[in-house]
Order: sequence, then C-alpha cells, then structure tokens
Amino acid sequence: MPDLVNKHEKLYIIGLMEKLWKLSEKTFDPHRINHYETIFTQGNGYFATRGKFEEYYPKQQEATFVHGVFDDIPVVFTQLVNFPDWTTLEIILDGEVFDLTNGEILEYHRHLNLKNGLLKRSLRWRSPKGKISRLVFQRFASMADVHIACIQVSITPENYSGELECQSSLDGCADTLRFKHWDWENQGVDEDSCWLNLRTHNTNIEIGMAQRIFINKNLNPEREAWNIREKPATSLKASLQEEKTLQIQKYAVLFTSRDCEEPLVAAREKLSQISNQSWDSLFKDHQSVWNKLWDQNDVIIEGDDRAQLAVRFNIYHLLIAAPRHDDRVNIGAKTLSGYGYHGHIFWDTEIFMLPFFTFTQPEIAKNLLSYRYHNLPGAREKASENGYVGAQYPWESAGDGREVTPTWVTHQEDRTNLIRIWTGDIEIHISSDIAYAIWLYWQVTGDDDFMVEKGAEIILDTALFWSSRLEWHSDRNIFQLTDVIGPDEYHDHIDNNAFTNYFAYWHLCKAVAVAEWLTKENPFKAKQLFERLKLTEQTFRDWNNQAHQIYLPYDEKSGLIAQFDGYFNKKNVLASDFDPRTNSIQSLLGIDGANETQIIKQPDVIMLMYLLPEMFEQEVIRVNYDYYTPRTDLSYGSSLGPSIQTIMDTRFGSEHEAYENFIHTALMDINDLRGNTKEGIHGASAGGVWQAVVFGFGGLRFNQEDWWIDPKLPAHWKRLSFKFNWRGESQIVDIRPEISAQ
Amino acid sequence: MPDLVNKHEKLYIIGLMEKLWKLSEKTFDPHRINHYETIFTQGNGYFATRGKFEEYYPKQQEATFVHGVFDDIPVVFTQLVNFPDWTTLEIILDGEVFDLTNGEILEYHRHLNLKNGLLKRSLRWRSPKGKISRLVFQRFASMADVHIACIQVSITPENYSGELECQSSLDGCADTLRFKHWDWENQGVDEDSCWLNLRTHNTNIEIGMAQRIFINKNLNPEREAWNIREKPATSLKASLQEEKTLQIQKYAVLFTSRDCEEPLVAAREKLSQISNQSWDSLFKDHQSVWNKLWDQNDVIIEGDDRAQLAVRFNIYHLLIAAPRHDDRVNIGAKTLSGYGYHGHIFWDTEIFMLPFFTFTQPEIAKNLLSYRYHNLPGAREKASENGYVGAQYPWESAGDGREVTPTWVTHQEDRTNLIRIWTGDIEIHISSDIAYAIWLYWQVTGDDDFMVEKGAEIILDTALFWSSRLEWHSDRNIFQLTDVIGPDEYHDHIDNNAFTNYFAYWHLCKAVAVAEWLTKENPFKAKQLFERLKLTEQTFRDWNNQAHQIYLPYDEKSGLIAQFDGYFNKKNVLASDFDPRTNSIQSLLGIDGANETQIIKQPDVIMLMYLLPEMFEQEVIRVNYDYYTPRTDLSYGSSLGPSIQTIMDTRFGSEHEAYENFIHTALMDINDLRGNTKEGIHGASAGGVWQAVVFGFGGLRFNQEDWWIDPKLPAHWKRLSFKFNWRGESQIVDIRPEISAQ
Repeated sequence: MPDLVNKHEKLYIIGLMEKLWKLSEKTFDPHRINHYETIFTQGNGYFATRGKFEEYYPKQQEATFVHGVFDDIPVVFTQLVNFPDWTTLEIILDGEVFDLTNGEILEYHRHLNLKNGLLKRSLRWRSPKGKISRLVFQRFASMADVHIACIQVSITPENYSGELECQSSLDGCADTLRFKHWDWENQGVDEDSCWLNLRTHNTNIEIGMAQRIFINKNLNPEREAWNIREKPATSLKASLQEEKTLQIQKYAVLFTSRDCEEPLVAAREKLSQISNQSWDSLFKDHQSVWNKLWDQNDVIIEGDDRAQLAVRFNIYHLLIAAPRHDDRVNIGAKTLSGYGYHGHIFWDTEIFMLPFFTFTQPEIAKNLLSYRYHNLPGAREKASENGYVGAQYPWESAGDGREVTPTWVTHQEDRTNLIRIWTGDIEIHISSDIAYAIWLYWQVTGDDDFMVEKGAEIILDTALFWSSRLEWHSDRNIFQLTDVIGPDEYHDHIDNNAFTNYFAYWHLCKAVAVAEWLTKENPFKAKQLFERLKLTEQTFRDWNNQAHQIYLPYDEKSGLIAQFDGYFNKKNVLASDFDPRTNSIQSLLGIDGANETQIIKQPDVIMLMYLLPEMFEQEVIRVNYDYYTPRTDLSYGSSLGPSIQTIMDTRFGSEHEAYENFIHTALMDINDLRGNTKEGIHGASAGGVWQAVVFGFGGLRFNQEDWWIDPKLPAHWKRLSFKFNWRGESQIVDIRPEISAQ
Repeated sequence: MPDLVNKHEKLYIIGLMEKLWKLSEKTFDPHRINHYETIFTQGNGYFATRGKFEEYYPKQQEATFVHGVFDDIPVVFTQLVNFPDWTTLEIILDGEVFDLTNGEILEYHRHLNLKNGLLKRSLRWRSPKGKISRLVFQRFASMADVHIACIQVSITPENYSGELECQSSLDGCADTLRFKHWDWENQGVDEDSCWLNLRTHNTNIEIGMAQRIFINKNLNPEREAWNIREKPATSLKASLQEEKTLQIQKYAVLFTSRDCEEPLVAAREKLSQISNQSWDSLFKDHQSVWNKLWDQNDVIIEGDDRAQLAVRFNIYHLLIAAPRHDDRVNIGAKTLSGYGYHGHIFWDTEIFMLPFFTFTQPEIAKNLLSYRYHNLPGAREKASENGYVGAQYPWESAGDGREVTPTWVTHQEDRTNLIRIWTGDIEIHISSDIAYAIWLYWQVTGDDDFMVEKGAEIILDTALFWSSRLEWHSDRNIFQLTDVIGPDEYHDHIDNNAFTNYFAYWHLCKAVAVAEWLTKENPFKAKQLFERLKLTEQTFRDWNNQAHQIYLPYDEKSGLIAQFDGYFNKKNVLASDFDPRTNSIQSLLGIDGANETQIIKQPDVIMLMYLLPEMFEQEVIRVNYDYYTPRTDLSYGSSLGPSIQTIMDTRFGSEHEAYENFIHTALMDINDLRGNTKEGIHGASAGGVWQAVVFGFGGLRFNQEDWWIDPKLPAHWKRLSFKFNWRGESQIVDIRPEISAQ
C-alpha cells in the first residue's frame, strides 16, 4: 500500500452524509433505557449528563457528574457524586401526565448528533384519553460555556385544545447509587426560576444550581414557584391550541466551589445573563465550538459507514469527558457517563486515552498529566505507607490522588464472604504508565516547559520509588520484583512480571536521561528539584546500575518472554477451547481456575511490545504475538484488550483478525457487547479505538526525529484521513488506496 | 423489712406530682439535638418517631420507623427503613422563616409528658427583623389508632400583624443513614392534603402516607397544593393579627402492605375519616389508652423523685416500642428510637425486655415470642447451613429471622482493614435465651395454649440443635461446647463457657419435660409435632443422657465456676485498676489486650446465676458474685450489665452498690451516660431497670406454685408499688417501710 500522505496540504472535510454522524434509537423500550442513557450522554468536559428522559421512568438511572466532585462512601472510599438532575420536566397535557408507558406511542425517534452534541427526540403520542400530541425534545450541554445546559420542547396538540402545565424542579436529595451525599445549604424561587445550594457531606464541596423555564411570551403563561425544602420548583401553565405549536425552553446553570467562591451567586448571575439570549444564539455558540473540535479531531473513514460512525462515537465520548479548563481532574474509567468504578481513575487514562489527546489536543493531555503532578503528595503518601521512597501512584485514584482501590468486595453469591482485591496493593506498573505517558507527550509535543515544571518531578520521584522497590536476589545477582500483578489480572501475586520488570528498567533509564537533560536545559531548576527530592549524581549512577541488573525475562532459544515466573508451567489451554461462550474465562473457571491456566485477561507481554517496540527485535515480537494471542481472552476478558490487539494484528496478524478486534472494540458500547454499557462508556476502549485506527490501520509511527506511516487499511476501506499535531504543527494524513491503484 | 403486701386489695394511684411525669428540656442547643431526639421519641407500638423539631436544622437526625419494615443494605444485610417525616412544618411568619438558629430565643421549654405521650414545646422567639411570636407545638402518635399522628401549633404574634404561611410536605426520598431505600410509586395532592405511595427497593414493602393541614376555619386560609414528584406538598396562608392566637393542625396517617392490601387507599380513607374529628377528641381517645397503660404498668417510687421519673421514662420507652397488634415483629436493641444496630433484634428482647411484658402485659409478651415462632424457618436454615439439626436462632434477627449479624466491619482507624465479627457464628446461647423466655412466660402466665401451639415447637426444635451441637470428648467422657462466645464478649472463641454449657443442660432437661407435659396435655398435638420434628421416645432419652453428660464447670474446693476453660489463667486485674476512665476496658486495651485479662464486659457467670438460681447453692452464688463483680466492666462495658448487677447486689452486695448500679442504668439515656443515646434508647437497659426495681429492690421471686417478695429497698425510698399478672390474675405489691416502722 503506497504512502499517499501529503503532509502539509490542508484538506477540508465536506459533504459528509448525515447518517455518519447520528446515533439513533427507533423505538422506546422502558426496559432498555439504561444502555441508551450511557451512549446518549452529553457533556462539555466540565459536566456530563446521561441520556435519560425529561419525564420520569421507574428504571431510569439519571446522572449528572462534574469533574472532581467526589465524596466519601464506605468500601470504595470515594465516589463521583450525582448532581441534581437539570433535565427534569414534568409535562401535563390537558390534565394528563406525559408518560410513554401510558397511552400509545404513534411515532418515535431519538438521536444524538455527534457533530454538535444535540440530543433530539421526536414523537407522536396518544394519551390514555385519546389526545394526540407531537413532541420534539432537544437539549445540549454547552461547549461554549460549560456551566450552561439547555432544553427545548415543542408541543403540538393534533386533535384537541386544552391546558399545558410544565413543572421544573431541582432535586436536593439526588442520590448516588442510592447513597445521599448532599447536605442542604440554601435555595430559593422567583417567578419562573429556582435555585439550590448544596454541599457534599465529607469533602465539603459546595454547588450552586439555578434554572428557569420559558414559554412563548405572547401566551402570557400563568407562573407558580414552589419553595419546598430540598425541592424548589417552578411551574408554567398555558393554553394549547389544536395544531398550534408551543415551545418550552429551560436553561440550567451549575457551578461548584471548585471553580468559584460562591457557586450559588455565580449560578444565579449566569442564569440572569443568559435569560435574554435565545435558544438559537446559545446553540450557535455551542455548535461553533463543536465545529472546531471536529475540524481538529475527526477521523474520516470511507467505504465502511458502520466503522465511520463508531469511530466518531468513541471520539465524541472522549471529547465530552476531557477536562479542557481544569488541570486537577482526570477522566475515570467510565468517563463521566455512568456509575461504574465510581468515577475512579486508572491507567486507562495514560495508556489508552492519552495518546488521542497528546496527538490531537496537547492542552488537554497537559491537563490530564498535571492532575498526576498535583497528586504527587498522595503518591508519596502511598510509597511511604508501603515502606518505599519517592512516589508510588495509586492503582485507583480520585479527588486527592490517594489510593482508593477497594480492599474488599462482597462475594456475589455468598453475602457473608468477602473477596480481597489486591490491585491497589501490588499492581505497581501504574507509576511507569504515567511516566510513559509523560515521555510520549514530551516526544510528540516537544513541550519542554511541561517537562521542566512538572514532568521531570514525576518521572524522577517515581524512579525513586522503583529504586527502593527493587529486590536484590543475591544468588542470581539480579534485581527482581516479586508479588505483583501485571496488566493481565487473571494472575495475581506473581513474580517478575515481564511488563512490570521491563518498564522498571525503561523507567530508571529514562529518569537518568531526564535528569541529564534537565541539568543541561535548566541547571537552576535541576538543582532545585534534585535538592528537593534528595537526588545526587550518585543516585543517577545507582539507578543506571540497578536498571541494568533488573531481571528481564527472555528465552534466547525460543524467543519467548515468560509473562511471569512459572507462566509456562500453567495449564496450556487456549481461549478458543472454551468457545462458544458468553462469559469471561474467569467467570467460567472461577478466580483460582483461571489462575491455573495460561489464558490471560488482556495482552500483557504483547502490550509491553506495543508500548516499547524499540526494546525488541521484530522476530521476537512475532514469536510472542503468535504464542500469546490465542491465549488471550479478547472477547470477554478485559475491555482494554481488543484495541491494542488490533494494532498488533495489523503488524503481525491477519487483516481479518485486525478488523474483527477493531470492530468489536469500536461497537463495544454502541451495541453493548459486554452487557455493562449501562454502567458507563468504556473510556479506555474509546481511546483504544482511536489508537487502533491511527497507529494500527493508519500505521502512524514515530521516533525522536520524525513521524511516518505504514498503513494497513482493511481492504474495503476507501479512505482513512486524520489530523494530529507534531511538535506544535498540525499534520494531516489522508490515505486513499483506490486512488493510488488507479 | 416486713412484707406489707396486700395481694388482692386494689389500690388506686392518685395525686402524683406533675414533675414525676415530665421530661424537660429548658434551652435550645442546636448541637445537642440528637440526644433529645432519642429520649423524646414518641410511638404507639406500630410506629415511632424521634423527637426532632417541626422545622429543619442541619444536624437533625429525624426518623420514623414502622415495625417490620426492613430493606437490604450492604455489610449489615438489612436495616429498619426511615419513613417520610410526618412532623415537618415549614412556618413563615410575615415573610421570615421560623428558625431558632436565627433571631433570638426569648423563652424556651420543651417537655415530653410520659403520662400521655404528648410532646410539647412552648417558646417566644424574636425574628431577625424584630417580630416577636409565641409558639406552642404539641404532637402525639395515637395509641388509640396506631396509624394516626397529630400536630398542633398555636401562634401568637406579640408585636406585629402580617401573613402566616405554613407548608407541609411528604418527602419521598427520605434516607436511612444516607441510604435511599424507597422507590417511588404514586402520589397526589388536593386542596389541603397530600399523599404518597412508596415501596422498599428489595423487600417490596409498600407504604401509603397521607396528611392534611388545617387552620382556624373562620380565617378562610388561602390554600395551595404542589404535586412535585417525590415531594407532594400543601401550603396554607392566613392573616396573623397582633396578640390573636391562630392554630394550625396537621393530621398524618400511615399504612404499609404488612397491615393492609392497599396502603395508599387505606391512608387516604383514614385521613378522610378523621378530618372531621377535632384535635381534642383524637387526643382524648389517645390519652385514655395511655391511662389504661399506666394503670397497668406504673411503678410508684416515693422518696426518690429522680428514680421515680427515670423508671417511668424507661417503662414509657418499652411501651411505645411494644408491638401490640402484630406477632411477626419484635423490638430491636435500640427500640424504634434510633439508627443503632439498624433495628436488629438480639437476646436483649428475651432476657432483658420480656420479663416486663410477661409480668405486666402477657399479650405483648406472646406477640414477641410468636415472632420467634414465625421465624423458625430462618433458624432451621441457620442450623442446617452450619451442619446441625433443628433450629439455631440468629444472634441478630430482623424481618425474616435469618442471621443478619454483619460478618465484617471496617476498622475505625484504618479504612483498608476489616474486623471479623464472630457473634453471628458462635454466640450460640441465643437459642436457649429464647427457650428460657418461653419457659418464664409459661410459668408466669400459665398460658398452656401458647405452649401447645408455639412454645413447645421452639423449645424442642432448638433442643434438637443443642443435641447435634454438643461435642463428645471421649478422653473425659463428657459433652462439651468449644469455640463459642458467652454473654461477656471481651472473650471470644472460648471453650466451655459456663453460661452456655449450663443453659444447654437446662434446655435439654426442660425440652424433655415439655415433651412429657405435651404428651399428657394434648396427645394429638404431641404426636403431630413429634412426627414433624422426627422426635421419638429415644430422642428424649438421648437428650436426657446428653444433658447429664454436659461438662458443667465448678470447682468444689473454692466454689468458683470458671467462666470458660482457662479463664483463671488470664491476667488477674480488676476493673477498678483502670479507674478513673471514660472508656470501656476494651477501648483502653484493645480487643486482644482485653481478651488477655479476666475483666469481663458484663455479668456472665453471675448472669447465669441470676437466671437459673435454682441450680446453685446460695453460698456458691455468693462466692462467684464476690469474685466476678470487681472484674466486671460495669461503668463502660455492656449497657446490659448494671441492671442485672443491681439485682444481684441487692441479694449479695451492699445497698450502696445496688443503688449505684441501678441509678446508672436508670439514667443511662436521660443523661446520655454512654455518649451514644443519639443512636437510640438502650432497650435492654430499659427492661433491666424494671427488673432491677421489681426483682431487685422489690424482691419479687416465684416458683412453680406461687410468688413472694423479699424487698430490699434503698434506705431513702418511702414506698415502692407495682402491679403484675400472675396466672391471669392482677397482683399489686405496695411496699411502705416507714409505715411498718411506725
């Protein structure tokens, strides 16, 4: 496949078909609403709201999350707190409550427009008493001003005239998975607006929300405001005329004490400012930001509409979750779209999501990495508690960077039994994953300032941790790392996990390099930092010596790398031996049963080779790819597996395998392939989709000097085009195999 | 002290001073409200509501509990669910919200009248704007109709005229210790009433609540009803005239699907029925039930006003918690007055609270024992799960009688650490405690029907458990019981706990006696039951043989009974060695530290001798009393200790010790002596107070033929009088030492 890239020529994307941007729901099923709530999530990097309906349904799982607003909870320590729901509208049509589970649905269509973040629902409904109405709901979370959310409802009575009543309240007792975090502070109402001031119970974060509802002015609606404690509400009443369309609009505003001193005052002021602005003008501002975002971030695929839509869907979810204005927050494993993992942050950010941001929006990547910088105190606390030096990052991280991995969870079948979760104790590769992401960011952006100000400190302080964590094995004259967990969590309490050992080696080497670079680049800063971290020339010499004595498993004869000591003594079975199946190998065999086999939850040695290709000969990678691939539980193991596997498939496997793994990960949430999309978007998978397309099919590679591509497009793809930034300059890749074939 | 009892002469109690009935709060302290919420709890045996204020304060811990309404929750398995608060009234006086933390309190007095269960608050308040009002709040939970609760507020503006607004809502998202159990079902409003229909999330118990507010009719108030989802509300507005008193009344009704098929319909119907009844007439009905209750249950003490009030306070809390109309519920360790122990039921009922009911209101005692009968399936499940036969009662019991003791709790200082709770596994004496309570009930009431229908089955099925639980020690030719916990929980995993072993012996003997009696009394029922439980003549012979081979620790030389194997090898220290202190010995020494000493949490051997005095010589009891008393952590150990100790003090100790222990337990909650009254009334202690007075100071004793007294009144008591039932006949004891001394 020839290289068709014209690097510096600007290309404009035009004429895209609508269907390549719209995710649709064609029928209303009250039992499947939770899946759609997740995939229809809207957001702006400050807050996000699940795609619940404006009216109430018993099984709804509404959520509005704001980055950084965590509060304490037993067992899992802390969780992202659900905000009062700004989408609620109770609509009463001529005395009958609008509710799709009553009466009859005559037409129904809902779609999320990925291009502008608008969620739109159009329907015709016959009420139990036979009154037919057309309703169109539209809403967006403003990208132009992240504190604003807007809803518009158009109502047309088809065969009746009567009274419309519309109630809008703010719910001060919004729960988070049935837990109440909010303490009431203050509230109020006036003619058509209401406001609410709450505080998280333990973390003491104050929030202010305010909202107003409007109705066509000429109708002169009857207004009521109800100031009931914890539930301020307003109501509008107006006349519905047969076949006349009436519009309701609702503007909501939210602030927290993380972003301003007086969130209630800020919310009320902002609401008052936007009250005179039309829906159209607010939407226009919002849309223009989305246009810029897509101009920068779109990936164009021609010849595969399903893939095109799915890739945009995954990019959309990264964009709405990415903190654009705050460098003290990060993206949880389930983004801001569901309750899964309680908003906790994992390596999913650094290894799976960050490459997308690093390459397309380095400012966001910098925010995400700065979160880790601000949380160094928590990492230092963890290292010290465990008897080590320097900084050891938590496996699960939240508001303040302390370890928040639950230590125990209840056994699902035996309520008196508990299962000990070990990842927070011994899945130690996270510290290198963060260093790796910084290194990648530095290489791709050339942002020396960040490295001087923040990056170096993280890399050096975590190197201190590794240096103290390494165990000297005097018989073998090596440093080893025993009792760890690698990326493959089917096997825990293992010794010398290849991924962890190689990364410890890589980490210490890079730390020495960073120290040298910093000394040259900014001797003053270097001196300050080294003094603060108690680093001397001897430290760097020690690191270098230690690094080269770390045991790096590798069998010269076979070229195989043992994932950990004794891996090859495990039962030699393949994942396909258990097909067909609808569950993970761990579910089928139990925790101990899976542990006894060679089957792994996700790429581990292969993952290492994907991230650090320069450390391995191509033939070694191929040998290990061939060995580990059939032993990886790609279909029901970790959702982190298939995307990385796609990339390695494009390099060492078949096009068929690559595409299968790609489409599985790309459709994972749209089609709820794992059955748990209701708990939130698989953020790592979304980031992995972008990597699979750009690094896998697009074949983007780079070294310290430059980048190049080695495309491996699926045969039916007619075009793949994407943009990225390289050292401050915008780059465009546009691959059109058919043109070249002509 | 001579016996002054005139058994069959009716005495009327008259002329009691008001102060002997009223528990007062003289100042308002927003930081101490939780203690008063507990002690001012009102109830009627169906529901109870803590003494929170009608207006909102941030630290309030409101609770309304209805017996039997439990729902699932992690860790502690199940908890009593807090109902929507019927006491809420938001009062706005000429535009200013009534709130004692604003403005100035000019006069304040709140008291609970134990005689009629009326909670009354009288105050004068100057608003921030200088408007002075007098307010009198009164409320009661009707004893005449347990589904009804009423509030009356009188408002008198002293120096202004203006508008009064009063809002009354029902809160559908009432939480239980921040956890949300309720799922919304239905709601509604009309002119001045609102109603709500909810359902517990897991246990599927439906509730219906309805309430109405009234204002003096002639004022023709302006009414509004606000039907906001989860928070239906009504509001009244009227004119306040300077120095004219205006009255607001609120009637609330609650039903559950445990007591009727359609709780919402039932609630609305009942509300409509009582809407025409005046506050005075509803209160009169309520008061007349209370009069009867006190006529039956009062204990009169003269010469010690503090003791008089305290004893009534404890009896009051037993009366409002006792299920009078339901034999499938029981009284939790904290009654219905707080969140402590989540409403779970312990031996506290059978051993501490039941004697009061057995002697004064056998119908309630029967309800409480029937709860255990209905929960036999749960007890059988527990025995079977543990590999035993018959029925093993749970240490903590709730809705369905399954074991609900939490197996793990989080360490208070190290959140990643868990502590294993063993009482649910090995505190096995509970099954005999229940059999003992049935035996006592049978002996005191002569209720053969209960024994035939329910009691015998419990005693025999739990005997089956003991028979299978006993371990044969072939070296010593004895049956033993290893790895248990006795009443003293400072020592766990112990072998041959004297209390447990003696009770197993007692239990098997009584089971054989019951089987013999039943065979004679009702051969048909006996045959049925024996067949169902698979009991034969051989079974009873085996039980008898087993019983007489159970190891019953006793040292002939010293007369001492070792509390368990190796007890005397523990560190021989006394509780007083650690005085002065404000914490339990276990808090001071840690779990392991306390375990290493002879100090015990509560009477254990002495408890055994209190319950089964016929098994021991007086001298043996005295020797053990002298040994164990100074080793018992009476001041800060278990709250169950001091009351029983009082009784044994009256028999074997000094008057001083007896009175000290008595007044400590009698004032435990009034004066918050343990610092945890905010979590609820110490129910066992309340029952223990009655026992201390009647069995201790009153010296009431009985055998199979008759009862007698051996009074040991404190020197300053001029009179002690109480009533009880003996085999269906009312008895009066009236002890007046001074009269006799004349």
